Amino acid sequence: MRQASSADLLDQLRAVGAQRYHDKHPFHVAMHDGRLTPEQLRGWVANRYYYQKNIPVKDAAILSNLPDRDKRRVWIRRILNHDGTLEAGGGGLEQWFALARAVGLSNEEVVAETRVAPGTRFAVDAYVTFARTQPWLPAVASSLTELFAPDLMSKRVEALVANYPWIDPQGLDYFRRRVTLAAQDADAALPWVLEGAADPAVRDACVAALRFKCDVLWAILDATQAAYGIGQDS
Amino acid sequence: MRQASSADLLDQLRAVGAQRYHDKHPFHVAMHDGRLTPEQLRGWVANRYYYQKNIPVKDAAILSNLPDRDKRRVWIRRILNHDGTLEAGGGGLEQWFALARAVGLSNEEVVAETRVAPGTRFAVDAYVTFARTQPWLPAVASSLTELFAPDLMSKRVEALVANYPWIDPQGLDYFRRRVTLAAQDADAALPWVLEGAADPAVRDACVAALRFKCDVLWAILDATQAAYGIGQDS
Repeated sequence: MRQASSADLLDQLRAVGAQRYHDKHPFHVAMHDGRLTPEQLRGWVANRYYYQKNIPVKDAAILSNLPDRDKRRVWIRRILNHDGTLEAGGGGLEQWFALARAVGLSNEEVVAETRVAPGTRFAVDAYVTFARTQPWLPAVASSLTELFAPDLMSKRVEALVANYPWIDPQGLDYFRRRVTLAAQDADAALPWVLEGAADPAVRDACVAALRFKCDVLWAILDATQAAYGIGQDS
Repeated sequence: MRQASSADLLDQLRAVGAQRYHDKHPFHVAMHDGRLTPEQLRGWVANRYYYQKNIPVKDAAILSNLPDRDKRRVWIRRILNHDGTLEAGGGGLEQWFALARAVGLSNEEVVAETRVAPGTRFAVDAYVTFARTQPWLPAVASSLTELFAPDLMSKRVEALVANYPWIDPQGLDYFRRRVTLAAQDADAALPWVLEGAADPAVRDACVAALRFKCDVLWAILDATQAAYGIGQDS
């Protein structure tokens, strides 16, 4: 039997996204269709905050597990992009607070995490634990939802602007910035995975890691939907 | 009984340094006195490399455990200082390779780690495990050997220039840079420890963490001395 190639692996990864990426979740479809109430959108932003605030935590865990300095120099940009810097401030988490304010949530309400559903917590905490405890290559592979994110981010900005005119469009800068940054992150991580996954066991672990990550994102929407419902009648 | 104050804690931390910091280790005293052979100095640089390469690893582990973004923005500078950046290169590890070349070791010899004694490995690995598994505050406190480092670094540059004229002084840039950076790092970390350690149990854990870190540095010199000896007669 011939060896599975890099192209095969990329196909497998893309197939995971086609089946399980959270753009297909009913809550997500409703969001893009303009069917969410303001309170449901706030519920989503507040739940997703718990994911956002843990991105640098899981990325620092992966940073600590990377095998060499050259890879750390690449990976550390993710943390700087989300946290901003001591000198310049900024960063994705800051932009998430701007989104929260644009949908009518104060920073205090978001930080208090009172709207965060237990299911969101369990899913995100599982993701952090995965990053801390798995070998670095599957942990890196779990980030490859970034292959699918730029497309979704572009559509999301369009859909939110068109369907929720009460949201200040400046609040959507996080998603606009992610179009470029997610592509940059995926471009950096994908070659490591394609090269490192020549071993079939590692390849399977990488595909499973991406599936796991899709499950994390999906579970956040399940928990949000369970807590807030979809549309006026729920 | 009155509460122990911040000043008391700082005294306790300084007392740990006065008793146990590695400047008092016989190998270290011999180094500064000019009694080490070139091969012994090479042994030290090669063993200490294993510590140097793990500094960003332990700092990324602590970064992942820090409780908020503001602290991460401070702490991440340590990793950037040691690893350098994708754009500009540089960093402390790069300067350590320069030191290695200045004492007659090629990058390949250093990276191969053939001179690294098992005792050095055990000590450094214990330090990384400590950073990964301990609560963030004692982990941060373990870095406070930086309170004592600037003084030692200044003396070390002077001693190496005076006693080992065969070493290219450019190779000592790592130590020159650490005079400033260690002070900056200690200035940032010390207030967290002094403030967070109001609880006596936490205070004790922080003092114990600094003692542990001194033991790590001491054990590296023990292992180096056991493998290479001190002076011509050993």
